[in-house]
Amino acid sequence: MKEKIIKSFNEQQFMQTLGAELISVEKGLVKIACTFHEGLTQQNGYFHAGVLTSIADSACGYAALTLMPEDADVLSVEFKVNLLRPAVGKRIIAIGKVFKAGKTLTICDGFVMDEQEKTVFTKMVATMICMQKNR
Amino acid sequence: MKEKIIKSFNEQQFMQTLGAELISVEKGLVKIACTFHEGLTQQNGYFHAGVLTSIADSACGYAALTLMPEDADVLSVEFKVNLLRPAVGKRIIAIGKVFKAGKTLTICDGFVMDEQEKTVFTKMVATMICMQKNR
Amino acid sequence: MKEKIIKSFNEQQFMQTLGAELISVEKGLVKIACTFHEGLTQQNGYFHAGVLTSIADSACGYAALTLMPEDADVLSVEFKVNLLRPAVGKRIIAIGKVFKAGKTLTICDGFVMDEQEKTVFTKMVATMICMQKNR
Amino acid sequence: MKEKIIKSFNEQQFMQTLGAELISVEKGLVKIACTFHEGLTQQNGYFHAGVLTSIADSACGYAALTLMPEDADVLSVEFKVNLLRPAVGKRIIAIGKVFKAGKTLTICDGFVMDEQEKTVFTKMVATMICMQKNR
Repeated sequence: MKEKIIKSFNEQQFMQTLGAELISVEKGLVKIACTFHEGLTQQNGYFHAGVLTSIADSACGYAALTLMPEDADVLSVEFKVNLLRPAVGKRIIAIGKVFKAGKTLTICDGFVMDEQEKTVFTKMVATMICMQKNR
Repeated sequence: MKEKIIKSFNEQQFMQTLGAELISVEKGLVKIACTFHEGLTQQNGYFHAGVLTSIADSACGYAALTLMPEDADVLSVEFKVNLLRPAVGKRIIAIGKVFKAGKTLTICDGFVMDEQEKTVFTKMVATMICMQKNR
Repeated sequence: MKEKIIKSFNEQQFMQTLGAELISVEKGLVKIACTFHEGLTQQNGYFHAGVLTSIADSACGYAALTLMPEDADVLSVEFKVNLLRPAVGKRIIAIGKVFKAGKTLTICDGFVMDEQEKTVFTKMVATMICMQKNR
Repeated sequence: MKEKIIKSFNEQQFMQTLGAELISVEKGLVKIACTFHEGLTQQNGYFHAGVLTSIADSACGYAALTLMPEDADVLSVEFKVNLLRPAVGKRIIAIGKVFKAGKTLTICDGFVMDEQEKTVFTKMVATMICMQKNR
């Protein structure tokens, strides 16, 4: 399961564009880190909301995937993001946690935090769908 | 107003990382285009949901800004995104439209579409806040 | 299809508690009206956000159901509501419109408006799921 | 503060229509209970999503109000609701918790649970705005 997620993460080329790293994969809980560089900023020099959303969405998707059948893939159906405060710092961490796993739909909470995981910059609630491959 | 938005867009370095272009600025309506390249993809080779969200959020924010006082700045408070179908194609267009402008909060609809603006890949509803500078 | 929806609406006893009426059922578009009475108010005498959400949710659900197979039932998965202005007036109208119909999930736009359908009080985006009965 | 909230709750006539009771008011945390009766049901005999949303919204609004200045009033700006499972049982509890209090906007988490507060039926994230009266 871990290997499948690492492989999938490495195939998300956008994660490499962001310089994002998969730092933790547990059942129902995935963490992705992202290091500051100027190419990730909005007009005030903070991390762009789109960067925060991208890593939170990926963390939530993979958290959902950890609880799905082995041959399943995951897609984001929808998410809602609250931008609580400007995201600053050398490195930020996105945490995806399964809130309720279902056969078809899984609901996840996502948080983007500072490196010490003390301050929440962004909060997400995401609905993920299980795509079962027919082999 | 247009100049202020072009200047702000150019200061969003993340838009350059995405290769996004500001293609239209009217009162209450802003369009941003993004051309496909591999660095923007998720694991199946489609545009990553984070890319779609990033350009939709920026288009909504600037659409809101067109109706705010001259010395105001805009911040995203929250948004909700529905991912309707995989986003494919050489070039995609994000459209931000003001649904209701208010003194403090402005509600926008965002859409990410194909280049012909026929198919909607992603739908956003965003709440923007007006930040008045004290000069 | 219309009959099925009228029957289901009449089984929603909460709609009767609200005094809500199903006033229009077309493919992909359903309208529900609600007449003001004091039992529907919040602390300032406006329609309570919960009333607006209830009729918008039902209108969206039935709009989705009009495009589903005959033996299907519909359930709300999630919705997001923007409360744009206080809802006042003798009678309000909730409009549910299918934005994208899918085999499993259908995305709807909902609006609660004044009786002339000119002013939007509340805006909803809802995800509905098709529940296929096994007969 | 408690008295102000009790007074406001009693002025929300819709809460009485639902038979809802304010059962707990602490700083940043408010609970509202609602007892089952047939007038609150949807077509399958469960609590209607609108009932769940109504009490969750009120619980979140009052939770936000506990942390606002004395002469302030609170209005819901927007909320997102996930309906996780059918809400059944003799009595349900809505819990509103402040996630981040701000001068203008406060973000709350809402949950509607069974009477033992073990199973979550519905999850809400709400943005509340502080309305300062000019006296």
